[in-house]
Amino acid sequence: MSVALSREPGQRRASTVLAHFALRRLLEAVGRPPISFVLWDGEEVGEEGAAARVHLRDSGALWRLVRNPSLGFGDMYADGRLEVEGDLAHTIELVFRASSQAPGPARYVLDRLGAPSRRNTPSRSRENVHHHYDLGNDFYARWLDADLVYTCAYFEDPRVSLEEAQRAKLEHVCRKLRLRPGERVLEAGCGWGSLALYMAEHYGVTVQAFNLSSEQIRFARLAAMRRGLRSRVEFVEDDYRSAQGHFDAFVSIGMLEHVGRAHYASLGRLIDARLGASGRGLLHFIGHARPWRMNPWIERTIFPGAYIPALSEMLPLIEESGLVVADVENLRRHYALTLEHWLARFEKQASWVESRYDARFVRTWRLYLASAIASFRSGSCQLFQLLFERTGGTGLPWTRADLYTGR
Amino acid sequence: MSVALSREPGQRRASTVLAHFALRRLLEAVGRPPISFVLWDGEEVGEEGAAARVHLRDSGALWRLVRNPSLGFGDMYADGRLEVEGDLAHTIELVFRASSQAPGPARYVLDRLGAPSRRNTPSRSRENVHHHYDLGNDFYARWLDADLVYTCAYFEDPRVSLEEAQRAKLEHVCRKLRLRPGERVLEAGCGWGSLALYMAEHYGVTVQAFNLSSEQIRFARLAAMRRGLRSRVEFVEDDYRSAQGHFDAFVSIGMLEHVGRAHYASLGRLIDARLGASGRGLLHFIGHARPWRMNPWIERTIFPGAYIPALSEMLPLIEESGLVVADVENLRRHYALTLEHWLARFEKQASWVESRYDARFVRTWRLYLASAIASFRSGSCQLFQLLFERTGGTGLPWTRADLYTGR
Repeated sequence: MSVALSREPGQRRASTVLAHFALRRLLEAVGRPPISFVLWDGEEVGEEGAAARVHLRDSGALWRLVRNPSLGFGDMYADGRLEVEGDLAHTIELVFRASSQAPGPARYVLDRLGAPSRRNTPSRSRENVHHHYDLGNDFYARWLDADLVYTCAYFEDPRVSLEEAQRAKLEHVCRKLRLRPGERVLEAGCGWGSLALYMAEHYGVTVQAFNLSSEQIRFARLAAMRRGLRSRVEFVEDDYRSAQGHFDAFVSIGMLEHVGRAHYASLGRLIDARLGASGRGLLHFIGHARPWRMNPWIERTIFPGAYIPALSEMLPLIEESGLVVADVENLRRHYALTLEHWLARFEKQASWVESRYDARFVRTWRLYLASAIASFRSGSCQLFQLLFERTGGTGLPWTRADLYTGR
Repeated sequence: MSVALSREPGQRRASTVLAHFALRRLLEAVGRPPISFVLWDGEEVGEEGAAARVHLRDSGALWRLVRNPSLGFGDMYADGRLEVEGDLAHTIELVFRASSQAPGPARYVLDRLGAPSRRNTPSRSRENVHHHYDLGNDFYARWLDADLVYTCAYFEDPRVSLEEAQRAKLEHVCRKLRLRPGERVLEAGCGWGSLALYMAEHYGVTVQAFNLSSEQIRFARLAAMRRGLRSRVEFVEDDYRSAQGHFDAFVSIGMLEHVGRAHYASLGRLIDARLGASGRGLLHFIGHARPWRMNPWIERTIFPGAYIPALSEMLPLIEESGLVVADVENLRRHYALTLEHWLARFEKQASWVESRYDARFVRTWRLYLASAIASFRSGSCQLFQLLFERTGGTGLPWTRADLYTGR
């Protein structure tokens, strides 16, 4: 540890010593990442030659950080009282990578800092969705692709454009589901409708797509009309739990994260009730490599009510519903790259976003996107595409070769 | 229900009525499959126009069956006191399919009939393996493929030969592992050595392969010598838990079933300890669609100490070991077809097998293979290939397209 000399001796000494001590303990607790802290008076705490520097603008910011590292970092960054010199995503990645190697007790302590989990009743789900997805379509249109696909893209090659990779994702999902013309598809959580419209347009299916976000449904309906797909795609502004009737396929992209552990069993029962004997389905969701708490700042500030499951936690949803896993693909690095595109585009729009919202909003979103990049790069988060069918079903082909031919 | 008239009135009547009652209750408990029972006196119990008929040769066989359906069926079939008219695998499949639809309480009762699970200590593992795999290499050579691959094949098309499908399986596994020349591979449970030799010959890796079966190890070492691969493939007659050193890849085909639930955590720790930072591994195993007991007859007679896990049961092995799922593929129908090949070849060798062992051995193996076909056809059993890597690893390519090109 290298500790710069105090500039002023005397009275400030005691609190400075305490600050140094606390920051060193913090660095140890998170596995000694190669970062240092620069205090408001210019002093630096941390390893010599650190790869990244975190500036603390006042002692209040320092104590907030030390008391609750995850919430404190987020809140102080959003306030502008904590700043990161250099690449934000890379700095957070260094911390995440070090933390995953941190000794058990430290990880245990960090683990306990999670927010208490809440039940996502239909009305709370509505609030949760409104909080994030009803920020205004023009906000998302500024930095997402043209189809507003707000989930992990699929890069056949990391050099292709975001637009191309999002199209490839929609195609990849349709192929995995082996959709056939005339089939009925139930989509739970349809975002701005890109997949529902793609399925109807390119695979000749009819789709019933549920979403609680009125902003998104409005956009999706307009797009269906513009593309002449109103008769084949029905966008329903309601909870997916309200779905009725029978379907050949079920699909849900980026919704399981919002369902919450307490509701996996009821989601399983819904799929079981809606899916026919030759039915199959796909869940595309962010997962943890093992059971782990949500990042509390993300849960409180960005995605209220969210929970990121390990595979072992969500699988009973499938296993207890007469369904079986046919195929799991982990697209973790694809999400890191997707988020890099989003953050780069977001930064180009930062002054527009600030004028529309405020500087705190910009910093909050910057931190959210950068920390998500870090999560996927470091392996804190994974992206699973899980294809399932009926136990004993015979609707899928013998191999997966058809997913990769003649695209 | 159609109940034929008793041929002889009087004294036998009471026991016959009881027998009919008990068999009807049994058929209801397993979800009313379209089968009937033909008693020793020619009477038939069951639905009219049943698709399959089960003959009971004496009242003792009937009561053994009724008291414990799973063990009783197996034991009485092996004894020749229970016979099946028509296709054995199809008949069992009808029962399995009906059972999976049976009402909860009946399934619960059947579920409780499982054998108590035992800990597979190294010495007991050795006994378990000896019981099945040391029956004599010439026995297995009579009905397996030329390379003695005794696990699920991979049929790129269901019409290809078993030989071709087994080769394709070895290739598929190597491709999934993305083996590179010079890498070190640890194989746990290597059978007769086909995969170890294939990896060394076609992918230029060195392999350390563990197996507790002395018969299999003897065969594998001979094959390594014949194929000039002794310097690159080491066959170790020992428990995989004895492995030392570091490896780039871990692979285990058809061994997890023999590990037992109590030992998943230690298997995970072994993989964690042996696998480098860019390591990846593949587990190929029979799974249940959901947590479920072993078939007690199979566990007692064919595979002592075996346990077939649901994915949710075995995943903690991965998740608690710094590893993460990269790819899961379900090859259930491939195993049904593999077993159909094996049973057909076995039947051609039945008189040789009987002369070498005895008629009871032939019937036991016929029932084992036929009931395995039924398990995979009906979905009672699944076959999972699970590829994993280090959490945050970057050793795998962006997509799985490379598995399907230029084969």
